[in-house]
Amino acid sequence: MADSLVVARDLAREFAVDAVERDRRGGTPKRERDRLRQSGLLRLMIPTALGGLGAGWPETLHVVRILASADSSIAHVFGFQHLMVATTRLFGTEAQWTRAWTETARGDLFWGNALNPLDERVRSRSVDGGRIFSGGKSFCSGARDSDRLIVSARQEGEARLLIAAIPTARAGVVIRDDWDNMGQRQTDSGSVDFEDVRVEEDELLLSPGPLSTPFSALRPCIAQLTLANVFLGVGQGALAAAAQYTRAQPKPWIASTAASATADPYVLHHYGELSLGLQAAELLAERAAEALQAAWTTGEALTAEARGAVALAVAATKAQATRAALDVTQRLFDVTGARATKAQAGFDRYWRNVRTLTLHDPVDYKLRELGDAYLNGALPTPSFYS
Amino acid sequence: MADSLVVARDLAREFAVDAVERDRRGGTPKRERDRLRQSGLLRLMIPTALGGLGAGWPETLHVVRILASADSSIAHVFGFQHLMVATTRLFGTEAQWTRAWTETARGDLFWGNALNPLDERVRSRSVDGGRIFSGGKSFCSGARDSDRLIVSARQEGEARLLIAAIPTARAGVVIRDDWDNMGQRQTDSGSVDFEDVRVEEDELLLSPGPLSTPFSALRPCIAQLTLANVFLGVGQGALAAAAQYTRAQPKPWIASTAASATADPYVLHHYGELSLGLQAAELLAERAAEALQAAWTTGEALTAEARGAVALAVAATKAQATRAALDVTQRLFDVTGARATKAQAGFDRYWRNVRTLTLHDPVDYKLRELGDAYLNGALPTPSFYS
Amino acid sequence: MADSLVVARDLAREFAVDAVERDRRGGTPKRERDRLRQSGLLRLMIPTALGGLGAGWPETLHVVRILASADSSIAHVFGFQHLMVATTRLFGTEAQWTRAWTETARGDLFWGNALNPLDERVRSRSVDGGRIFSGGKSFCSGARDSDRLIVSARQEGEARLLIAAIPTARAGVVIRDDWDNMGQRQTDSGSVDFEDVRVEEDELLLSPGPLSTPFSALRPCIAQLTLANVFLGVGQGALAAAAQYTRAQPKPWIASTAASATADPYVLHHYGELSLGLQAAELLAERAAEALQAAWTTGEALTAEARGAVALAVAATKAQATRAALDVTQRLFDVTGARATKAQAGFDRYWRNVRTLTLHDPVDYKLRELGDAYLNGALPTPSFYS
Amino acid sequence: MADSLVVARDLAREFAVDAVERDRRGGTPKRERDRLRQSGLLRLMIPTALGGLGAGWPETLHVVRILASADSSIAHVFGFQHLMVATTRLFGTEAQWTRAWTETARGDLFWGNALNPLDERVRSRSVDGGRIFSGGKSFCSGARDSDRLIVSARQEGEARLLIAAIPTARAGVVIRDDWDNMGQRQTDSGSVDFEDVRVEEDELLLSPGPLSTPFSALRPCIAQLTLANVFLGVGQGALAAAAQYTRAQPKPWIASTAASATADPYVLHHYGELSLGLQAAELLAERAAEALQAAWTTGEALTAEARGAVALAVAATKAQATRAALDVTQRLFDVTGARATKAQAGFDRYWRNVRTLTLHDPVDYKLRELGDAYLNGALPTPSFYS
Repeated sequence: MADSLVVARDLAREFAVDAVERDRRGGTPKRERDRLRQSGLLRLMIPTALGGLGAGWPETLHVVRILASADSSIAHVFGFQHLMVATTRLFGTEAQWTRAWTETARGDLFWGNALNPLDERVRSRSVDGGRIFSGGKSFCSGARDSDRLIVSARQEGEARLLIAAIPTARAGVVIRDDWDNMGQRQTDSGSVDFEDVRVEEDELLLSPGPLSTPFSALRPCIAQLTLANVFLGVGQGALAAAAQYTRAQPKPWIASTAASATADPYVLHHYGELSLGLQAAELLAERAAEALQAAWTTGEALTAEARGAVALAVAATKAQATRAALDVTQRLFDVTGARATKAQAGFDRYWRNVRTLTLHDPVDYKLRELGDAYLNGALPTPSFYS
Repeated sequence: MADSLVVARDLAREFAVDAVERDRRGGTPKRERDRLRQSGLLRLMIPTALGGLGAGWPETLHVVRILASADSSIAHVFGFQHLMVATTRLFGTEAQWTRAWTETARGDLFWGNALNPLDERVRSRSVDGGRIFSGGKSFCSGARDSDRLIVSARQEGEARLLIAAIPTARAGVVIRDDWDNMGQRQTDSGSVDFEDVRVEEDELLLSPGPLSTPFSALRPCIAQLTLANVFLGVGQGALAAAAQYTRAQPKPWIASTAASATADPYVLHHYGELSLGLQAAELLAERAAEALQAAWTTGEALTAEARGAVALAVAATKAQATRAALDVTQRLFDVTGARATKAQAGFDRYWRNVRTLTLHDPVDYKLRELGDAYLNGALPTPSFYS
Repeated sequence: MADSLVVARDLAREFAVDAVERDRRGGTPKRERDRLRQSGLLRLMIPTALGGLGAGWPETLHVVRILASADSSIAHVFGFQHLMVATTRLFGTEAQWTRAWTETARGDLFWGNALNPLDERVRSRSVDGGRIFSGGKSFCSGARDSDRLIVSARQEGEARLLIAAIPTARAGVVIRDDWDNMGQRQTDSGSVDFEDVRVEEDELLLSPGPLSTPFSALRPCIAQLTLANVFLGVGQGALAAAAQYTRAQPKPWIASTAASATADPYVLHHYGELSLGLQAAELLAERAAEALQAAWTTGEALTAEARGAVALAVAATKAQATRAALDVTQRLFDVTGARATKAQAGFDRYWRNVRTLTLHDPVDYKLRELGDAYLNGALPTPSFYS
Repeated sequence: MADSLVVARDLAREFAVDAVERDRRGGTPKRERDRLRQSGLLRLMIPTALGGLGAGWPETLHVVRILASADSSIAHVFGFQHLMVATTRLFGTEAQWTRAWTETARGDLFWGNALNPLDERVRSRSVDGGRIFSGGKSFCSGARDSDRLIVSARQEGEARLLIAAIPTARAGVVIRDDWDNMGQRQTDSGSVDFEDVRVEEDELLLSPGPLSTPFSALRPCIAQLTLANVFLGVGQGALAAAAQYTRAQPKPWIASTAASATADPYVLHHYGELSLGLQAAELLAERAAEALQAAWTTGEALTAEARGAVALAVAATKAQATRAALDVTQRLFDVTGARATKAQAGFDRYWRNVRTLTLHDPVDYKLRELGDAYLNGALPTPSFYS
């Protein structure tokens, strides 16, 4: 097993201890974020030549699953760390991403997200040698307590969304503590206000820029696959927790013909169906991660067809992981029973987390893409969600 | 429309205002309980001759659904009020239930539950003219702030569970404030300790006693049908809230071919499926309520066959209401989207409430009963859950 | 029980005897059609004043279900008998439908269908005192061996589809024996060729004509509800046949913990789920039939809102009956096992019949209508399918 | 692509031409069986050293899927060819299987099945140097037109089922032409009568014999995985045929908002869901085939744990392939419409074939095994079905 997986498992065990309590509290998991910094995993996919651990996407996303099985908020911001790091590679110049990666590896920098392309309130205007960003941005996961930010803005007359990588400490960046949601409560997915923030020209990721080439259009694939691995990890963690609970049951339901809850025919059938759904999702996730890795390695030579194949593998993973994770987190109660609803057990957090995160974009439209590919041979049109 | 339904709708509107906030807080909804007392609905099914409103089960359970659409904790204890009131009729002598009903109607007394037959820790011993109950009881919904309690205990040498109706204020009755669950957070379904509580012989419901005749065995039918109406009411309230939210959406998902979220083909399909599931559950609920009412009116002449038919109609309702309510409360997010997960909207409470309450007893065994009836013509064996 | 139901049950028992054999053979069930003629059921919904049995829609559709449980081809043409008879009422003048009904009752006339509005190949042209219809029409269920036909044609310059009631024996009407389908094999739903068929002006149903008023727009409601009752009847017949088969099983599956197949936990669970689905469909069907009956009785005073409510009740029935019947006919094999696939048992015909008939128009669009009604308060736009 | 896959695709194309017609006819597909003999594929998994093609299980089962996409009867007997060939390896001595394989490769011998362990009517008695088998055996797929048979019998006083490999031409072997089922109509899965058939002692597969070691207990894994690949292949063939049909549709449903059937939102959604289900099944099938291959290569050193892991991978495949194939073959009509039910299209054969074959043993018990493994770490107890 790769060292990273061992480290991830240790961290997962550690994070699990007070995951229920932290879910209730919400806010920034500062201690846990610092443990991630110390673990070295923030530089997991950065090449060893630049000071990283040199992992590929299959390993990186496996770590995401492991963390998600214990704490999906932390898994989310951890997964997005790599999405942000990858963004510099996909949208920026070699000089830009080499510098970003080297600094990240050296300082174990944590990246946050302030890119949300659907919220276009941040406006840019040109000034000498740079731009000024002003306005608010919502759903900025992991922005609090971050060292670097990927930010976006609209500038009049420019068709493409402007995307930049800047230090979080930059003057004018105001990160609100306003995330209070039913799930993913420690992701700090609240808002960031840009109060006349100066962005240097060489902080803008313009070449090739967002979604401009098949290769740069891998970003949404990475985003979607990261989230799908979080769903899947939650499902895996939830079913494992349920099994532990069932095994500790003193007796089966009074009408059962079985001698124990663990031998009840309906309980076994549920576990069979739920574990099967997770197995299928995991195989799809692994296939997609391998396809992504091959595309990532191909670099700018990536064709639209090959990028489309990755997007479809990711869409399939997302659809199955959504279904399996919702199914597990809803039905786990059918195999644990009424007492498993006590707040202290915290079993509802699995569902709240999955349900929140699976709404990032509608799974119906992923299924539509899969159908369009099957029926019409159509490739998904690259967008920030496809 | 019956007056009771008008009153119930008004109360529901009132309770809805701070339902999200009260869900977060948990504890006893004292103000709302007093509003129920003032409304007269606590004596809804007591005959007018005894000071009640004289409603039958269809109307009473309709009121449960209306309240549940706004606040399922209150609907639960309100529904159980009538279960407790009915218990005196089903298990006790005419003198006992006449007195209980008259006092309830006169004082708008609120009844609580401390019967849980699966928790057999409360022991009874005989003393002159009565018994002493000692021990703890769990899952005592609505015991706090109640005026009367239905309690149960085991006495050595007696095969049947002892059940009594006593004033909540009786010395030695200690109601713990220890209910902290993921759902149904204002039902006070915590524990009650009996510290050498004296129960008078004529407070014991011994004749005919629990489950001793087909008629007395209607109690679990009432309990199950009450809960099923709560699930259904939550589903109805949740879907209505979702529709209001969808209608307020500024635009459809970016990949939609529709001009508005309200015209999106997948959104409409979801609403179609979800509303259909609720319609089916409501028809089953109404059929079961009518069957129950006919059996209730029949009284002690009720045959085992007729009681079995009621139990099966109730089981069908419970199974369909469980499915429909879980489906609505999980999928409503697919038609409202990511922003509907903010804590302030409180949409997760619908699922938490339904998921908690649908675990009262496993729906798999209700489906088994339905199958046994269909395939083998078997009637459900009366128990506290069938 | 109404006499008609007794008669229907007797016929169903009779038709069941060689239903498997006749399904294999296909073609026209001449003997069975004559038995229907003799039974008097062809005039079931014609008022007694005109020589009929005076039944309402709930009873008529109940008969459809009973026949469908034994033979869905016969149930289909029997149901369409009443649709055609109703068409004269909905689209024609009082003189037209009075004559049609009187003649039908007197002669136990069987009506066939040659209306298919989606196949517009039949053209009409005016001649002195009438029209000439020429061209082919597909999906003409029950046209063979019929006495009367409802036919349709397009005439240039007329917006509305021309619909007429004519004797099947009219010169130029050529009914092809070309129906060879995977299901509903004895419905003769093949093609009819109109070789310059003369249609008298007073055979045209022009006043009010098709879909011209809310009342005349009840026709698709009747068509859809009739088909839904056929699905439901097949589901009921199929599950009853499966249960008989399971009860005759010598032993359970080798890995079962139960003593007999009839006690196997999974077998019972399947029967529970399947019978529940049928129960829900039946309640929806009864509710829709009552709504239809009320609208039918209202006559031309029917409002668009009231007609819309009927259409929605029908749509809900169709969606649930489709689901339940497909579910039963697919899963019945899970409760009967491998030996139940022998051709002689003929169990696949249930699925083939339901699957064929449920495709009359796509259920997805019924669910969409239900969603549009729930979310937007929209009434289905009357068409030949809504 | 391996040569065998190319050959298989050519054969599939050829077999597809009259698959509908042959399904109707039933009986023995003699011409197609001879084409298989000529193709060399009957010796696909026999090592090259013994004259075979030397393929592993992943390739062999891939060929099964390809054939099943065109004709599942042929795929079934082709898959069972390799199961029978493998049986000599798993249950017999090296001398036995070496001889069997060499002869098979040299003569392109076709093996048939007469083993059905649930039908214990064939009795064995000892005679000098051999045994006499007498009695009937049901479900003998591929016995007609075979060259060799795997047969089984019970001998009093012997605990284990006796299994032997004999020439089909052996005196007393009477193969009935009595297979007439709703599906898999050209598999000749009828009965074989043994009229005092002499079996030589060295034709008995006694060492190690059936299910006696973890390695010999691989046989049910191979049987189940072969069938699962047939289901999956049918699903793949059915969905491809449906897509071809949809693409040829002149227009969408009248109520659709789309310009063509291929752009209808519900049509695309169905294709998305159905193709996703098949993808998941295929990944599970490939994983199981690889696990099987590793176990096969391990030989007698295989541990019970490793064998259990194969059995679980197979069970997961079977469960998912069952679900996906039933789903595709039922719902393909929702994306093709009413006209696709004409007998000539033959689309119902997909469902009839899958439904027949998925009943080989109940999938509920596979799900139970998966649940028992997940919850309790239990390995499936080897039997002829686990």
